[in-house]
Amino acid sequence: MSQNSAIGVFDSGLGGLCAVRELSRLLPNENIIYFGDTGRVPYGTKSRETIRKYTKEDARFLLSHGVKAILAACGTVSSNALECIRDITDVPVFGVVEDAAKAAYNASRTKRIGVIGTQATVNSGIFKRKIEAIDPNAVVLQKACPLFVSLVEYGFTADGDEVTRLACERYLAEFEGEIDTLIMGCTHFPIIKEHIAKALPGVTLINPAKEAAKAMAAEFNAKGLLSSSREKGEVRYFVSDDPTGFAASASIFLGESEGIFAEKVDIDKL
Amino acid sequence: MSQNSAIGVFDSGLGGLCAVRELSRLLPNENIIYFGDTGRVPYGTKSRETIRKYTKEDARFLLSHGVKAILAACGTVSSNALECIRDITDVPVFGVVEDAAKAAYNASRTKRIGVIGTQATVNSGIFKRKIEAIDPNAVVLQKACPLFVSLVEYGFTADGDEVTRLACERYLAEFEGEIDTLIMGCTHFPIIKEHIAKALPGVTLINPAKEAAKAMAAEFNAKGLLSSSREKGEVRYFVSDDPTGFAASASIFLGESEGIFAEKVDIDKL
Repeated sequence: MSQNSAIGVFDSGLGGLCAVRELSRLLPNENIIYFGDTGRVPYGTKSRETIRKYTKEDARFLLSHGVKAILAACGTVSSNALECIRDITDVPVFGVVEDAAKAAYNASRTKRIGVIGTQATVNSGIFKRKIEAIDPNAVVLQKACPLFVSLVEYGFTADGDEVTRLACERYLAEFEGEIDTLIMGCTHFPIIKEHIAKALPGVTLINPAKEAAKAMAAEFNAKGLLSSSREKGEVRYFVSDDPTGFAASASIFLGESEGIFAEKVDIDKL
Repeated sequence: MSQNSAIGVFDSGLGGLCAVRELSRLLPNENIIYFGDTGRVPYGTKSRETIRKYTKEDARFLLSHGVKAILAACGTVSSNALECIRDITDVPVFGVVEDAAKAAYNASRTKRIGVIGTQATVNSGIFKRKIEAIDPNAVVLQKACPLFVSLVEYGFTADGDEVTRLACERYLAEFEGEIDTLIMGCTHFPIIKEHIAKALPGVTLINPAKEAAKAMAAEFNAKGLLSSSREKGEVRYFVSDDPTGFAASASIFLGESEGIFAEKVDIDKL
């Protein structure tokens, strides 16, 4: 492991590719290894015990590639299992919760903050606890929006999509007038951020993948871990299910599909 | 294994409980063992290889309870992996495809039949092939409707639900005037059959779980496998993820939740 080793990023599926996109923008010279556990997706509906078992296996795969840092680009993992990774490695470990909580708190004038995510993320209450740790008087309102994941994965993402517009209205109505900042606590949600913004005009949206990328850049800078390369970094993609069709699915999150392919990992056998 | 042994039913998740409901109605004296592979759900988005591996493991679990017959109450399994079960047992094996295809063909006047299901079921083309095997001149139009699964699981099921109404219109518009019979080729879909019916007025809907229950009843009758009990049969439920909250989720499919609980199976360790 050296400053020119790759950054390891993983998610239960492909939503974590949003973080790859943010990292590539902010740290264009870094190599990245992405693992999407598509054979066992989704984690959000599974038990804490199962999520922790899977997380350790995912991290071990990335560590086998000598990564210099790990980003769990998954709200469910960040909420339930980050310490499982720190138990097995000394490389810096990042999630998509801590820095998003700080950013939301700093962005909010009224200190009334909303959190949306999968059922598991909301049940864990992790964003709420992190914000209340900064300021016990902050008010944090949570709402599970599990259908958003499906709407993104099945292509209901166009700006004018009526199904997604109605689903946003249904889920988000209770936040109206109650908050001034909203954490999109699931990697999929920023894909439909225009719909979310329209349902809650005037509310500041926080994208945890972007906040995680910023936090990694700051830490690499402080610890001399920034890549010394002047070339554009390479990204290698791995998935645990059939990689056929990966480019098409990945393009939802990466915004491009050209020259993109994934290698298969048998995660059960690692 | 005897005529008074239980019927084994499994699904990738809880949708197969629809088949338990149909079996309990038609064969009220039968004991049933249900296994829902909630730790690895959904199968519909996974590769054929993965689906076949999981199917064998699920069937072995039911066979370890000495079941007299197995119903794969899952469109994805029935389309991709039924023969994997027949490879490892001599008990009768039923799916939710063959009998539904026959029923649809018999119900159709125009012999123009629609099929809706998960992406994997539609990709497999199994309903289309089964109908064309009966009549090569039949016209079968298929459409993957993956969002329906999420709409059912996340409670968008009320008769007046606008999100589900719009999603039905979006997915089903292409069938209008093209078919007179539609196979609801995923166990979840009959839960929103009122919405599906409204989007396609005059079209006959086929519920594969109901057709499977009828086929099992006929086979048990013919082979002397009907239970000799005169008491109401018992149902035991098993799941591979945390069984907490099972009753609430199961009630979507069973129509009741009182006295219902599930036992946990570690399917990876069987």
